[in-house]
Amino acid sequence: MKEIRYRPIGVIHTPFTNIAGMPIQPSGAKGIRGTIRLDSRWVAGLKDLAGFSHIILVYHFHLSEGFRLHVKPFMDDRLRGVFATRAPRRPNPIGISVVKLLGVKGRTLRVENVDMVDGTPLLDIKPYVTKFDAVQTPRMGWLSGKAQKAAGVKADARFGPERGTSRNPAGRRE
Amino acid sequence: MKEIRYRPIGVIHTPFTNIAGMPIQPSGAKGIRGTIRLDSRWVAGLKDLAGFSHIILVYHFHLSEGFRLHVKPFMDDRLRGVFATRAPRRPNPIGISVVKLLGVKGRTLRVENVDMVDGTPLLDIKPYVTKFDAVQTPRMGWLSGKAQKAAGVKADARFGPERGTSRNPAGRRE
Repeated sequence: MKEIRYRPIGVIHTPFTNIAGMPIQPSGAKGIRGTIRLDSRWVAGLKDLAGFSHIILVYHFHLSEGFRLHVKPFMDDRLRGVFATRAPRRPNPIGISVVKLLGVKGRTLRVENVDMVDGTPLLDIKPYVTKFDAVQTPRMGWLSGKAQKAAGVKADARFGPERGTSRNPAGRRE
Repeated sequence: MKEIRYRPIGVIHTPFTNIAGMPIQPSGAKGIRGTIRLDSRWVAGLKDLAGFSHIILVYHFHLSEGFRLHVKPFMDDRLRGVFATRAPRRPNPIGISVVKLLGVKGRTLRVENVDMVDGTPLLDIKPYVTKFDAVQTPRMGWLSGKAQKAAGVKADARFGPERGTSRNPAGRRE
């Protein structure tokens, strides 16, 4: 299938300079603040964004190298299909997080509940709309009874760069 | 900033062969069924996915060419910053939709509430987890009072290919 190319529109800055010890989801990153520095060419696209209390960040897991189709998630000790997890090492290492928007000033956004590593390349910003994006799920598979605990779970190094795995063929960087 | 390259992991099939007349959000696509054909090399990654009632599809708006930083959304008649909208024509034309998962068989997923055009290249599948992904937003900017109406709004051709706009420099395809 044809390759798709994107270019980061900015960088997400957070207090997390290492993968180990990071929260694994925004629900575990409550109150943790970060800033987004948008490339100046995109500033006009931020018009009207400040009216939203929450935004969706789409980003590239830039420290994630290689992947396996079966992974052991942070919250489990059994192998799960990678698409049934939110593990950063995936065929296309794209991350999605809903964060609270505190303010927009020039090309800088102040956000809260950040769960990504400092320096993460940002691909897109979308307004979060409860009516579109919030779903009550009757079934949540292997995460049943585990999702509630995510707030207390911190990442270890398992999804960072690793020697000996093949370089990710579906999500490469130059 | 460095270019990021992804490769589609499959294709989303829906009843929508044209942009015009499509629902603009899954909330307007209730009950509309589609199928995902995953490239066979990724099938092992689907393990455990069937346990989830809802999944997040991350995909490429392949018909979207060019973009403007100020756009007139389907649900409004005023110009808004592109990042304050869900318009498909954006610097990196990445789409996100939460759909209901009906079943997984081999490399085929049956899904419901599809709001993308037939043939859309799929980039990633993630389990939807209410605890991580559902947020009640106190403020929803220009969409206040409009989001409820999204279910009845259909797309027109405004975000499809257009003559005279520059080819999207941030989200190119080969």
